[in-house]
Amino acid sequence: MNIELINTGTELLLGAVLNTHQQWLGRQLAELGRRVTRQVTVPDSASAIRQAVQEALSRADLVLVTGGLGPTSDDLTREEIAALLGRKLQSDAGIAARIEGFFAASHRPMPDQVRVQAMVPEGATVLTNEHGTAPGLALLIEPNPFRPAGGRSLLILLPGPPRELRPMFQNQVLRLVEQIFPDVEPFATRTLRTTGLGESRVEERISVPLQPHLAAGLEVGYCARPGEVDVRLIARGPEASTTVKTAEQIVRQQLGSAIFGEGQETLEAVVVRRLIERGQTLVVAESCTGGQLGHRVTNVPGASAVFRGGVIAYSNQTKLHLLGVQAGTLATHGAVSEATAREMAEGVRRIGSADFALAITGIAGPGGGSADKPVGTAFIGLASAGATRVERQCNPYDRETFKWVTSQQALDLLRRALGAQARAGN
Amino acid sequence: MNIELINTGTELLLGAVLNTHQQWLGRQLAELGRRVTRQVTVPDSASAIRQAVQEALSRADLVLVTGGLGPTSDDLTREEIAALLGRKLQSDAGIAARIEGFFAASHRPMPDQVRVQAMVPEGATVLTNEHGTAPGLALLIEPNPFRPAGGRSLLILLPGPPRELRPMFQNQVLRLVEQIFPDVEPFATRTLRTTGLGESRVEERISVPLQPHLAAGLEVGYCARPGEVDVRLIARGPEASTTVKTAEQIVRQQLGSAIFGEGQETLEAVVVRRLIERGQTLVVAESCTGGQLGHRVTNVPGASAVFRGGVIAYSNQTKLHLLGVQAGTLATHGAVSEATAREMAEGVRRIGSADFALAITGIAGPGGGSADKPVGTAFIGLASAGATRVERQCNPYDRETFKWVTSQQALDLLRRALGAQARAGN
Repeated sequence: MNIELINTGTELLLGAVLNTHQQWLGRQLAELGRRVTRQVTVPDSASAIRQAVQEALSRADLVLVTGGLGPTSDDLTREEIAALLGRKLQSDAGIAARIEGFFAASHRPMPDQVRVQAMVPEGATVLTNEHGTAPGLALLIEPNPFRPAGGRSLLILLPGPPRELRPMFQNQVLRLVEQIFPDVEPFATRTLRTTGLGESRVEERISVPLQPHLAAGLEVGYCARPGEVDVRLIARGPEASTTVKTAEQIVRQQLGSAIFGEGQETLEAVVVRRLIERGQTLVVAESCTGGQLGHRVTNVPGASAVFRGGVIAYSNQTKLHLLGVQAGTLATHGAVSEATAREMAEGVRRIGSADFALAITGIAGPGGGSADKPVGTAFIGLASAGATRVERQCNPYDRETFKWVTSQQALDLLRRALGAQARAGN
Repeated sequence: MNIELINTGTELLLGAVLNTHQQWLGRQLAELGRRVTRQVTVPDSASAIRQAVQEALSRADLVLVTGGLGPTSDDLTREEIAALLGRKLQSDAGIAARIEGFFAASHRPMPDQVRVQAMVPEGATVLTNEHGTAPGLALLIEPNPFRPAGGRSLLILLPGPPRELRPMFQNQVLRLVEQIFPDVEPFATRTLRTTGLGESRVEERISVPLQPHLAAGLEVGYCARPGEVDVRLIARGPEASTTVKTAEQIVRQQLGSAIFGEGQETLEAVVVRRLIERGQTLVVAESCTGGQLGHRVTNVPGASAVFRGGVIAYSNQTKLHLLGVQAGTLATHGAVSEATAREMAEGVRRIGSADFALAITGIAGPGGGSADKPVGTAFIGLASAGATRVERQCNPYDRETFKWVTSQQALDLLRRALGAQARAGN
């Protein structure tokens, strides 16, 4: 099954915004054993949209188009696709009523041009928008005049805003796709997520033991991000699931505790899950990461059961007054030091009455480095009832990457203390 | 000038990672008045990479390819492009020595397979990688056999990791592009960033006054994200700069203080800049945002001059003990209330001795809502020497969007108090 994704939006090509649809839709389909085979971004131009849709329809069984369904003058998708397929646009009374209700409920006056969103090409299925005014549209094209082999293709138009697109896709589109394309070749995939090892090192450890399984159709992929390397195992055909399972055992054996999770599970989700399982609590004291560690932990639903909060100790004053770090420690060892990290961790643990405390102090840059402690230096402390340990790290990256990697190392320090294993590894 | 971008990586199509290259490269080129005309993502498959490069070369003057230059077995770009162009791969002694030096400097043993990165197609210019082992490659294809019109095309291969790609692009590729394609049609673009108004409302206010300028070639685009709507003005030709400037004045007049910045300037960067200009300081007290407000502020280089830190008050206990919120207030009004937000803001301002304090308390969901205070309810307090004000907001979104929009509203409350205008608006 060929699936192509077309993202419309000049802002994507100008770099004004990130294309998050590609990632989200790719994941949703991969979970059903269906892979996006090609993705393209085109500007908000009538000819570019029409050409991209025609090209995709010449190859694909399923074509997803995002964006260009809104009320503004650069929203051209609806009109261009109706024209390409030779279908008339008609106003749909149900959608029109829904749009009026949407504005009434939010007590906002309704601008006139939003009515264009009620226009629907002949024969299209309307996909209700629970979170906005632009409905999605599904068109079954049968026979498909653009495909040399003929057959049929399903064309799905989705609104651009993620919080409108996502529930529409999950609640309406996936069902439609399974209905129209019920048969897919058996497909298995497993992604194991690691931290603390480089990409070459990960491959070096697993490539030889995985070698014999490549002949059986195993595909191995690597994806390196700051502080993380994913190992992706894929197989197709009737033996797919066994092949991937065997390969997973080999990878787990070779990489051991460097594996923190699987699939889309984040390191923070693993840590929160383990804390919940153990009934233990966490507080944080953040200097250079400025709140990112707390932000990441509180992105996990249910974090409030185990996370008590903490202190953003961005200035020496905050370290002294809120955390009880000794003035002598700051004077003798400096704010970025093992001793300060230790006192920050112990101080916030005492104040917050938690089982565990993580503390981070470091130099994010661009300024502030020295020969002894260059930009990128970080000290990470973990205090618990038993003891406090501090690790020194060197993360010589740009500011945002530094913050990310350092908060990652802090979470991993706690994960190892919690004896956390990825679910399937137990 | 036609520019096409090819991102290689099965992980992008499976949704394992976000395509940040598209955004970053698009911005870099747009700043030079050059626009990416098309972007495509293909899997790590030999035939897909080769076909995509050939297609792009049949249309574009400049083709950028990211990824697939690393040392692992799914890195195929170098080999496929050499084969497509009929050029031999030769080992480059300079790169080989550089790779060895890289491993020596980081005191890590060198895996054997990294040597493949020293292979270079005949006639290619090597782009030095300052942050990793895989060099980039530039190939001038003249004449271009894939283009019906002939002529020449520049093909640039870049490594996948952003911290390797970015300096390479800025320090080496941009110069090459300007050298080989010195003439571009005059092009002007301006993006004005707004917060607090919906997309339709923004267009309603500006579309009529901008109407007369559309005939002069003005393009207007809108990009809505949670808590933000960008207005993008574009013009080409000799009058481009005047056209955009006139349009900008109209937009500024119509949208007034809803405009917080321009270009890529973030709301947090505007706030930090204004605090620095005024020599004033900020502290924060975050409940439901869990540290994101502090994280956003500390993403801005130079924030340490004005940001003192604060408290992540995720539990009632933290609100009581660290912020001095009254137990009676929590009991009578609840943790999510105007009174609590007020005491949090005033408490953290007192403890942190800062000029301004922002406090956030709310219900991120999915649980915790009531009829009176549904999921999405937030109270945002701003305390200063003069007074404390609290705004109630309703942000009924998913957890991460809720956190983003709420921290956005907090930053905007402070921006308005600071009398902050986008730079060019003064």
